[in-house]
Amino acid sequence: MRLRNKPWAEEFINEHQDVILPNPEQHKGNWAAVFGNDHPIHIEVGTGKGQFVLGMALQNPDINYIGIELYDSVIVCALERIVEADKPANLRLLKVNGAKLQEYFATGDVSRVYLNFSDPWPKTRHAKRRLTHEGFLAIYEDVLIEQGEIHFKTDNRGLFEYSLMSMNAYGMALNYVSLDLHVNMPEDNVMTEYEEKFSAKGQPIYRLECQFK
Amino acid sequence: MRLRNKPWAEEFINEHQDVILPNPEQHKGNWAAVFGNDHPIHIEVGTGKGQFVLGMALQNPDINYIGIELYDSVIVCALERIVEADKPANLRLLKVNGAKLQEYFATGDVSRVYLNFSDPWPKTRHAKRRLTHEGFLAIYEDVLIEQGEIHFKTDNRGLFEYSLMSMNAYGMALNYVSLDLHVNMPEDNVMTEYEEKFSAKGQPIYRLECQFK
Ligand SMILES: C[S@@+](CC[C@H](N)C(=O)[O-])C[C@H]1O[C@@H](n2cnc3c(N)ncnc32)[C@H](O)[C@@H]1O
Ligand SMILES: C[S@@+](CC[C@H](N)C(=O)[O-])C[C@H]1O[C@@H](n2cnc3c(N)ncnc32)[C@H](O)[C@@H]1O
Repeated sequence: MRLRNKPWAEEFINEHQDVILPNPEQHKGNWAAVFGNDHPIHIEVGTGKGQFVLGMALQNPDINYIGIELYDSVIVCALERIVEADKPANLRLLKVNGAKLQEYFATGDVSRVYLNFSDPWPKTRHAKRRLTHEGFLAIYEDVLIEQGEIHFKTDNRGLFEYSLMSMNAYGMALNYVSLDLHVNMPEDNVMTEYEEKFSAKGQPIYRLECQFK
Repeated sequence: MRLRNKPWAEEFINEHQDVILPNPEQHKGNWAAVFGNDHPIHIEVGTGKGQFVLGMALQNPDINYIGIELYDSVIVCALERIVEADKPANLRLLKVNGAKLQEYFATGDVSRVYLNFSDPWPKTRHAKRRLTHEGFLAIYEDVLIEQGEIHFKTDNRGLFEYSLMSMNAYGMALNYVSLDLHVNMPEDNVMTEYEEKFSAKGQPIYRLECQFK
């Protein structure tokens, strides 16, 4: 789906600037003012249609969530969902590029990074575009608190294999690894759209938690 | 299969002391004398019935292999196989406990450790018995060359998840991870008995290579 097929998207986004913040660079280092509290901020890079970040926000009212998504045509679906859920006070969206997090977040602004079913970029020459490439890890490290964590889920075997090696090579601690999440589904697992789709096909879902040292 | 069902096992083992070395502690620091050359030595801990270590020895004549197995009743099957293959000059067996490698190998004697389908010991209170527990990693590190490697295959999801975390926590480099080895089977893959059995059932085979720093 492209924006040209959704002429109303831009308008709808502009109507809800309390959810999709229009000038996020203004909040760098001062996100407590946006949320009206200093609860920890967890971001999801590549939020897609927002099911995960909304579910997490409803499940954990004492954590502030920010979903980050590059495309209008996708983020507008997340926005619809959030508007229908009466705009939880602890949830915002940013329509920005995850490669530019440092423009919007100062060191320590973010307490946790979620990556869910990130684009796999299977070709070796595209490795730098993977959201778990060392270039992105350095960006996450820069905006995270000390010993900040990344929580990552995917169905993509190649991306998960790569990510284990990339995180290990970066010197991160692997605190948790599941190679078939849905066999012993954690009670508090919030499914993403892609997770529902791929697990319904019987594919194993991989999950890890890692931490900067 | 227990030894009591194989009364001929002890005799057969004693007849082939050129394969199952009777006093391995005598060769500590001096394995070149056993093999008549100073080729690198790769050991497999928990060799079982020996298909892997024999296949590797035949495939790689310039590497010396030592299969280590604790039980008479099992190692005797490996011995039979090796006798049938006319006792390759680059292959030996040790009927010893992998927990005591330091009695038989000096630092640097070993260039690589193979672990294949090691017993999973799924209960947390048995974690110390897993061949990828930090206690065992310290033993392997002590007998290996600098930057020595461990190559590990298993069908057991829990053990593989644990091993990734254990090796990462030990500070090892994860150089290679496959979460379904047989999808892109490496041409030089030598299957173990357990690998044949579990892959025939359609279970994914996990494999990793890691390295001490
Ligand atoms: C495969 S989808 C997964 C969506 C969702 N996380 C899920 O699990 O259902 C990946 C999403 O990440 C977004 N994305 C990819 N690279 C991005 C980047 N650099 N910054 C922000 N979003 C990105 C894509 O537009 C897409 O919506
Ligand atoms: C599950 S079997 C796998 C055999 C073979 N590697 C394969 O893949 O077919 C594990 C083997 O490791 C042996 N073993 C377990 N702990 C050991 C130890 N501490 N030292 C030597 N051998 C051990 C067991 O006796 C058993 O034969």
